[in-house]
Amino acid sequence: MQKVNIAEKLSRFSEHWSPKIIAELNGQEVRLAKFKGAFDWHSHANEDEMFLVVSGSFVMEFRDTSVELTEGEMIVVPRGVEHRPVAEEECSVMLFEPAGVVNTGDATDSELTNPAERI
Amino acid sequence: MQKVNIAEKLSRFSEHWSPKIIAELNGQEVRLAKFKGAFDWHSHANEDEMFLVVSGSFVMEFRDTSVELTEGEMIVVPRGVEHRPVAEEECSVMLFEPAGVVNTGDATDSELTNPAERI
Repeated sequence: MQKVNIAEKLSRFSEHWSPKIIAELNGQEVRLAKFKGAFDWHSHANEDEMFLVVSGSFVMEFRDTSVELTEGEMIVVPRGVEHRPVAEEECSVMLFEPAGVVNTGDATDSELTNPAERI
Repeated sequence: MQKVNIAEKLSRFSEHWSPKIIAELNGQEVRLAKFKGAFDWHSHANEDEMFLVVSGSFVMEFRDTSVELTEGEMIVVPRGVEHRPVAEEECSVMLFEPAGVVNTGDATDSELTNPAERI
């Protein structure tokens, strides 16, 4: 029975927009990612996604509004809703979503598509 | 599209062992709880449970071992595994688990059974 230290896991990688799986439960995955710059507009047809800021801040853009999130704040993006995270400075984020979600969703020609790797 | 501030949600309640739902996604719930003292031994037959320490620390006891968790650390307790959280001092915890989980699981005669309330 092993615990997971989030800071230790974050120290293992530096790439941006490259999600790392740190736990699995009930068919869901807990992932960490580092954001910097603007991601691609996309949505996930069948999966809700949760973003929790571990350090730093970023803006979740939607087509009709945007929400700034800082450390200790979270948001759930419902399935089907187009969104784009944008981080002026590097931001560390915990994600909670169904296993196997592709980070760029329906943006299938994105250069930011990265498979989630277990660390 | 609303964000959730974890500290603000924690400021809304003071009871121990009384989970509060702060988000739902993919049939799962994100809950906050304040631990103090020893909970009851129990397990959940069909649900894995994740505990992430927001502030303070607690010990997750298992029948054959125990794991101390402090701020920024998390653990997944697999379905069927008996466990008992114990907190010497008050500890604030975020939980991820399937919607509808009863906090005391199979400990059906526990006085600590509390329905999860949405805040």
